Amino acid sequence: MTDAPFTHRLRVRYAEVDQQQVVFNAHWLTYFDESCTRFIEHLGWGPDTWTRDFDVMLVKAVVEWQGPARFDDWIDIAVAPTRLGTTSFDLRFTATVDGNPAAIATITYVSIVPGQHRPVEIPPAVRAVLEHRLT
Amino acid sequence: MTDAPFTHRLRVRYAEVDQQQVVFNAHWLTYFDESCTRFIEHLGWGPDTWTRDFDVMLVKAVVEWQGPARFDDWIDIAVAPTRLGTTSFDLRFTATVDGNPAAIATITYVSIVPGQHRPVEIPPAVRAVLEHRLT
Amino acid sequence: MTDAPFTHRLRVRYAEVDQQQVVFNAHWLTYFDESCTRFIEHLGWGPDTWTRDFDVMLVKAVVEWQGPARFDDWIDIAVAPTRLGTTSFDLRFTATVDGNPAAIATITYVSIVPGQHRPVEIPPAVRAVLEHRLT
Amino acid sequence: MTDAPFTHRLRVRYAEVDQQQVVFNAHWLTYFDESCTRFIEHLGWGPDTWTRDFDVMLVKAVVEWQGPARFDDWIDIAVAPTRLGTTSFDLRFTATVDGNPAAIATITYVSIVPGQHRPVEIPPAVRAVLEHRLT
Repeated sequence: MTDAPFTHRLRVRYAEVDQQQVVFNAHWLTYFDESCTRFIEHLGWGPDTWTRDFDVMLVKAVVEWQGPARFDDWIDIAVAPTRLGTTSFDLRFTATVDGNPAAIATITYVSIVPGQHRPVEIPPAVRAVLEHRLT
Repeated sequence: MTDAPFTHRLRVRYAEVDQQQVVFNAHWLTYFDESCTRFIEHLGWGPDTWTRDFDVMLVKAVVEWQGPARFDDWIDIAVAPTRLGTTSFDLRFTATVDGNPAAIATITYVSIVPGQHRPVEIPPAVRAVLEHRLT
Repeated sequence: MTDAPFTHRLRVRYAEVDQQQVVFNAHWLTYFDESCTRFIEHLGWGPDTWTRDFDVMLVKAVVEWQGPARFDDWIDIAVAPTRLGTTSFDLRFTATVDGNPAAIATITYVSIVPGQHRPVEIPPAVRAVLEHRLT
Repeated sequence: MTDAPFTHRLRVRYAEVDQQQVVFNAHWLTYFDESCTRFIEHLGWGPDTWTRDFDVMLVKAVVEWQGPARFDDWIDIAVAPTRLGTTSFDLRFTATVDGNPAAIATITYVSIVPGQHRPVEIPPAVRAVLEHRLT
């Protein structure tokens, strides 16, 4: 774990581009989901452990599209926590293509008991690392 | 075209459900997209014509999840315009499963020149039918 | 349950069409999966029960594409069993768009213990209805 | 361009895993599609150029699943041409997870006029590099 800003990089697949020749809107939520997974892993919880030790459910997503992403473009997605509640928190995703704004999103996650859909307080260890990175 | 509230009904596919046994979040944007297509068709523009006469691009989506949708559930999605600007408009999607709230979303579309990504005024004929249904 | 040939009908979503303006190849497996679900339901096992009483896993798929399916096309997919082994069976999918050949596929499923990935004999009740429809 | 065997590596996304906790079958065709793109790029045609200079359409896919791929697994997919006709060719995909067999596939592509769905002879420059790698 480091304090450097975290960025996940991915490449647009042919399957993700529609007739308008840009990434179909729904795939952006998948990109943010994958970026969240990598961010949490970067904080110290690999997918093998975090769905066992804690898990999350989406309750809200606000996405704004600013510019196109096309087949085979590289997308850089910066991830940072922007709000930290008792059972929920927000992550902010800032996506660019070659440095040009592509999309920004704020997603609200609620901490749940792994394997259930019941809200539970964010585990202290997770809270600590998120708090450290709050922007 | 009628004035009755418009609702699109769809059934959750196995492919759309994740390890948490609920619809993966990104698929909701696909559901809303399909609901928008059916709504516009209901207003008088089938997909064969509306991407020729006018087209749209998403600029913003706000989604709130309220309850689970599971494999094979039927989802009812009511669609209504809630804002009408010069080049953009909002559609409101209200999704229920067996009458229980599942998700609500407001999506902002910008009217574009078909085949291009350039904003253009909403065509008068489209504006008229959206205006009639504003809620 | 009836003996009439079973056909599932679905409509191509905008999200499923790629830059070539036809359904992206991978979505065909999703279409066949959904058609399988509806076929099994037609035989008497709704999704609520069949993943409890029996379940399946894909071991092989052979797909041949014969013609395009485009945005908003209706696709008719006929489903019939063509082979019935001890633990595995084949379903044949024949897809048409407005009566024109679009794709055919043969998919081999292995019966598994629900919740596990361990092969098990096809339950007698399932075997009986599949056998009755063998073509 | 080199003669070393070509392998594409990708990581399973949460969105791609279903209730059985394995990659949903259809996503494998997307994985192979992406592997094909990377393979063709490796041969010297980046996506910016190859859909302009030549393009392909799938006519057949044979996929055999051999073992599970789970959330966050790394999948290695080796790609090699196994048949070279006048207008069509086959690529063979061999996928492993941590060295364990996961899936193999043979996909038949037909060369088409870019922007159209009309078959055309494989361009000589493409043919030459594919021939060189035939296995």
